[in-house]
Amino acid sequence: MSEFDILVSEVGPRDGLQMAGAIMPTHLKKRWIELAAAAGLKEIEVCSFVPPKVVPAMADAEEVTRFARTIPGLTVAVLAPNARGAENAIKAGAQKITVPISVSVSHNRANVNRTPQESVAEIARICALRDALPEDERPIIEGGLSTVFGCTIEGEVPLRDVLMLCNALVEAGVDEVGLADTTGMANPESIRRIFKAVRAEIGEDRLAGAHLHNTRGLGLANALAALDAGVTTLDSSLAGLGGCPFAPGASGNIVTEDLVYMLEEMGLRTGIDLEKLLAIRDVLHEGLPDEPLYGFLAEVGLRKGGRPIEKVASIQ
Amino acid sequence: MSEFDILVSEVGPRDGLQMAGAIMPTHLKKRWIELAAAAGLKEIEVCSFVPPKVVPAMADAEEVTRFARTIPGLTVAVLAPNARGAENAIKAGAQKITVPISVSVSHNRANVNRTPQESVAEIARICALRDALPEDERPIIEGGLSTVFGCTIEGEVPLRDVLMLCNALVEAGVDEVGLADTTGMANPESIRRIFKAVRAEIGEDRLAGAHLHNTRGLGLANALAALDAGVTTLDSSLAGLGGCPFAPGASGNIVTEDLVYMLEEMGLRTGIDLEKLLAIRDVLHEGLPDEPLYGFLAEVGLRKGGRPIEKVASIQ
Repeated sequence: MSEFDILVSEVGPRDGLQMAGAIMPTHLKKRWIELAAAAGLKEIEVCSFVPPKVVPAMADAEEVTRFARTIPGLTVAVLAPNARGAENAIKAGAQKITVPISVSVSHNRANVNRTPQESVAEIARICALRDALPEDERPIIEGGLSTVFGCTIEGEVPLRDVLMLCNALVEAGVDEVGLADTTGMANPESIRRIFKAVRAEIGEDRLAGAHLHNTRGLGLANALAALDAGVTTLDSSLAGLGGCPFAPGASGNIVTEDLVYMLEEMGLRTGIDLEKLLAIRDVLHEGLPDEPLYGFLAEVGLRKGGRPIEKVASIQ
Repeated sequence: MSEFDILVSEVGPRDGLQMAGAIMPTHLKKRWIELAAAAGLKEIEVCSFVPPKVVPAMADAEEVTRFARTIPGLTVAVLAPNARGAENAIKAGAQKITVPISVSVSHNRANVNRTPQESVAEIARICALRDALPEDERPIIEGGLSTVFGCTIEGEVPLRDVLMLCNALVEAGVDEVGLADTTGMANPESIRRIFKAVRAEIGEDRLAGAHLHNTRGLGLANALAALDAGVTTLDSSLAGLGGCPFAPGASGNIVTEDLVYMLEEMGLRTGIDLEKLLAIRDVLHEGLPDEPLYGFLAEVGLRKGGRPIEKVASIQ
């Protein structure tokens, strides 16, 4: 990370495609991942190791993971909801495995059919799988804390529950804990407050990134607040693909292109080429012609060499 | 302002309507303004005093201003590009007059056909008009500095030019100076840096609000940065109406509903009722049926009593 200030972690091939109305053909997933790496993305969450019956769009998880591992310099991240998924992810060569666990009991039940405590025990089993591997083959295990900033079923989520689960996850052996605004309920104030509290609780090295949604348009403001709280890894999705399937028209994940634009304009280096990044939207459109593609930058275009492309706007 | 933390200044009836493809009938403008005040907006920029030949949508400026003045508790703001407009605005009873002046020479010429120095001289004449009035009838004169964060013609705008013009405006007699990201080129870093510099230069009392655009999606992140820099007045437009006519699909002004949602979620009091605010979008749709209405909150809906309306979202 020394040459870059911020790690932008692309989660579209996992978080975006699991939600899409259609299934993107495997060869287009591969092209997306290849082009994203070529545009400078250093970490991509390429798929989810879930039963194809539950999420048919992820049936090619193994093939996609194996392909992604052939790309030099790329960290291949995946999601796995349980030990069976993690085992398959390890076999396929995943370098980072995020295991989701919701802070609120009802949401965790709805999502992975377990209590949070049962999820912690499952994550301990996944950490044991990791520890059984030779040291240089061990993937990073991240506990992906969901509903940290509010729950769609339970409402407010107490900070003490967040901190308790953070400690339980560290105890279970995770390398990192990430915080997700699964429900789009975070605001810049809660982002700053909770990230700082978690950082103080488990230490800077164990605090992974922020997984933010743009459900109510606060995505980039929340990302800015996370930066203020010392976060250096931000998840996002090309064209904002993914997010909430229950709110038509509202984009879900924060848009990678817009996030990178903000960071680079602020003087924070991401190592990502925005023109190359924007061009990948064509692959998404080819693979999912009916899916809406979000993003302001794509609408307006880049500023070229300090001479932006728009004409003069009128009064103020 | 003591009971509220942030003044949200609605600029839609001016900035939004001057850009719209159609002309909103006067009775609907009045209804918008009336409902906005009833929703808790304390300041509304109701129109622009420009020649009807140049901006036909503002031909009813005097009637709209006189109507707005009948609403108790509302500060009636207007825009006037020159002394003639300001004179008409004063006659109609405007309580606050913003006079636009671009920092970059080319943009000021394109916008008001003057050099910035000529604009300063014009603003001095407007301040003289104000001073000739009895003290209790004097409107607030705001110098509205445009292209502060970049110019679509000249590119980078030197901070020294911004500060020089701020001082010239204070010298000319303005009550306040506002800073506008006319071209949507600001980022949170430049917002913080430039607002702090201007504040140090002319003092907190003279620094009016931030007029931010959402051209590349950074609107709310920039608003957050402005708050960090001590700004307490933020311009915005209902449904994001207005903004850049040269970028189809890209919203212009930051969306009042989304801004108020962010502020209130952060615990900053605006005094604005979000449900009433959202309901006014119907008037906009009635008056400008072909105009796109922006805003994330309107798509997703409010969270009710801490129990949000969405169903459970899937994994992370």
